[in-house]
Amino acid sequence: MEDIISLKYGDGGKYTDLLINEVFYKHFGNELLVNSMDAAVFATNKGRLAFTTDSFVVKPLFFNGGDIGKLAVCGTINDLASAGAKPLYLSLAVIIEEGFDIKTLKKIAQSIGDICKKTGIKIITGDTKVVEKGSADGLFINTSGIGIVQEEYNPIPIIEGDCIIITGGIAEHGTTIAVKRYNINIEGKFQSDCMPLNNLIQKLQKNLKYIKLMKDPTRGGLATALNEIAEKAGMSIILDEELIPISKEIKSINEMLGLDPLYLACEGRMIIIAEKHKSKDLLNEIKCINGCENSAMIGYFKSGKNIVLMETIIGGKRIIGPLQENLLPRIC
Amino acid sequence: MEDIISLKYGDGGKYTDLLINEVFYKHFGNELLVNSMDAAVFATNKGRLAFTTDSFVVKPLFFNGGDIGKLAVCGTINDLASAGAKPLYLSLAVIIEEGFDIKTLKKIAQSIGDICKKTGIKIITGDTKVVEKGSADGLFINTSGIGIVQEEYNPIPIIEGDCIIITGGIAEHGTTIAVKRYNINIEGKFQSDCMPLNNLIQKLQKNLKYIKLMKDPTRGGLATALNEIAEKAGMSIILDEELIPISKEIKSINEMLGLDPLYLACEGRMIIIAEKHKSKDLLNEIKCINGCENSAMIGYFKSGKNIVLMETIIGGKRIIGPLQENLLPRIC
Repeated sequence: MEDIISLKYGDGGKYTDLLINEVFYKHFGNELLVNSMDAAVFATNKGRLAFTTDSFVVKPLFFNGGDIGKLAVCGTINDLASAGAKPLYLSLAVIIEEGFDIKTLKKIAQSIGDICKKTGIKIITGDTKVVEKGSADGLFINTSGIGIVQEEYNPIPIIEGDCIIITGGIAEHGTTIAVKRYNINIEGKFQSDCMPLNNLIQKLQKNLKYIKLMKDPTRGGLATALNEIAEKAGMSIILDEELIPISKEIKSINEMLGLDPLYLACEGRMIIIAEKHKSKDLLNEIKCINGCENSAMIGYFKSGKNIVLMETIIGGKRIIGPLQENLLPRIC
Repeated sequence: MEDIISLKYGDGGKYTDLLINEVFYKHFGNELLVNSMDAAVFATNKGRLAFTTDSFVVKPLFFNGGDIGKLAVCGTINDLASAGAKPLYLSLAVIIEEGFDIKTLKKIAQSIGDICKKTGIKIITGDTKVVEKGSADGLFINTSGIGIVQEEYNPIPIIEGDCIIITGGIAEHGTTIAVKRYNINIEGKFQSDCMPLNNLIQKLQKNLKYIKLMKDPTRGGLATALNEIAEKAGMSIILDEELIPISKEIKSINEMLGLDPLYLACEGRMIIIAEKHKSKDLLNEIKCINGCENSAMIGYFKSGKNIVLMETIIGGKRIIGPLQENLLPRIC
C-alpha cells in the first residue's frame, strides 16, 4: 500500500478493498463486518431499539485526550446511552481527501479499534469515499448506531422539583479544541473529556427507572442542552453556578480566551434529570463510575417559563439563553 | 432564514434548529424524527435486522433522473433490500459547505421527502454539520438504514448452475454522470436509473426462499459486483454479453467516450442469484415489477476458479476482472 490516499482508493475496486482490509479491518474487523456485503445482518429479540447518527468534522484531527476516530465512536455511543440504550452496533463511513496520509489514517483506525475493544461495541458496516484534493478537509467520519433501550428505562414527564445532575467537569472538550485551534501555548494537564458513557447505562440499570431524561451536552455546551430540556419539559430550570463542576484550569483558560464555558462542548458527560427523592442516591452511584467522579447536582426544575436561570456565585441571577452564534465551528 | 448557509447554521444553536425545521423537517418530518433528541427510539419484535451505511459525494449534485438526495435515500434502501430486508428507518446526516445556497438545499430536501413518501420509509434521526468554505465540496450526505430481514430469506450456498438475473439496463447512472461531468452535449432520453428497490423485496416475498444472494451493482458496476460474488461463492461466473440489458443510447455514448459500461454504476438495479429450477419463474415475476421490465437472465455459475468469463457477441471469451482504477470518481 502507498503512503498517500489517491482517488483510486475510493472507486469501489481493488484499491478500495485494500484500504478497507489494511487500514480498517485490521483494527476493528469482526465476523459481522467482514462477512457483510452491503448491509450487516444481526439478530435481536428485544423490543425497543435506539437509532442515531452523527458526522464528525472536528479540526484538528488530533487533540489532547483524543482524535476524530475516538470522538466519532464515543459520540454515537453516548447518543445511544442518552436514550437509555445499551449500545449494540455501529456503522462507520469515512470521506477522505485525496492526498491524506495513510499512516495518519491507520492511527485513527487504531484509535477507533481501541474504543471498540474497550467497550465491546462492534462496527458491523462501513463505507469509504475519497474526494479530490480541496473537496474535503482531510477526513470526515460518520458513525451511526443501534442500541437496545433498557427495559427499566421508561421516562415519565418532568415535574417541579426534579433534579439535574451532570456527570463531570464541563467545557473540557471545547476548551481543548479552542486552545489548539487558536494555537495558544498553554501548559497544563487539561484535555478533552472525550470518553464512552455506555458504562453509565450498565451501572445504573436498576435505577434507570428514576431517570426522566438524559442528554449529552456536546455542540452548544451545557447551556444549550439545558435550554432544549427546559423547552421540552415546558418548565424553568434553576441552576446554581457554584455547583457546576469545572476545573480551575479550564475556568482560567476560558477567562483568558474570553469564552463562556457554559457554551463549550463536553464529549464525555451526560446531563441526567432524576426524580427528586432518588437524586442523591443516584448521584452517589454515578460518582462511583470510572470517569464520573466529579458528578454534581447542579439544579432543579421549577414551573414557569421555559428558561434557564442561574444563581451566580456573586449572588445575582442570570438568564442563560441557548447558543446564539458560536465563535468556534468544527469542535466535533 | 437567509439565502446562504453560513457557519452559524452548524453550531448546534438556534440557527441549526432553524435549518433543521425549515429545510429538513418540512419535507420529511415525522413523529419519531421530530420527537427524537439525540437518538430515535422505535419498537420491533422481529428477529433479524439489517444495518447499512453510505456516504454520498456525487458530483454534480443534480443529474438527469435524480440528485444527491434521491441517490442517498435510494442507495441505502437498496443496500437493505440486497440483504433481503424490508427497509424500516433511515438516518440522514449532512455536511454542508459554508456559502451553500439554501434554495438548492431545500430542493434536495424535497427530493428526499418525495422518496420517503413514495416508499413509506421514514428518516427518524439526523445530524447537520457546516464546514468553512473550501473545506467540503458543496454538500455530502450520509444515510444509514435499518431493515427487517424477511423470514423467507435464508440464503443457502451458491452451487453450479445457479442463475444470475439483473433487474434492468446497466450503466445508466454512471453514463449520465459521465456525460454531465465531461460537459458533453448529447441529446437523448437517457437518465440515471436511480430508484428505490424496496418493492422488489415486497413483491418477491414468497419467492425469496429461492434467492441465494443479492447485490446492487453501484461503484465499480456489474463487473466488479460479479467478481465479488464469484469470489464469495468460490466459483466461476459465465456471462453472455448478448443477454446483458443495455439501452442502445447508453451503449453508443460509452463507445463514444471510450468507457466500458460493465464498470459503470447502476443505482436502481439488483443482481439476483437464483436457484436454477426457479430462475425463469422468478425472472417473469421480476419483469412485472415497475421499473424492472428489462430484467434479464445474464449468466450462471460454474465450478472452477473465482473468475467472471464473458462469452462475447462476436463469439469470443473474455475474462472480466474487477475494477482496476476508475477514471470517474464521485459517481455516488
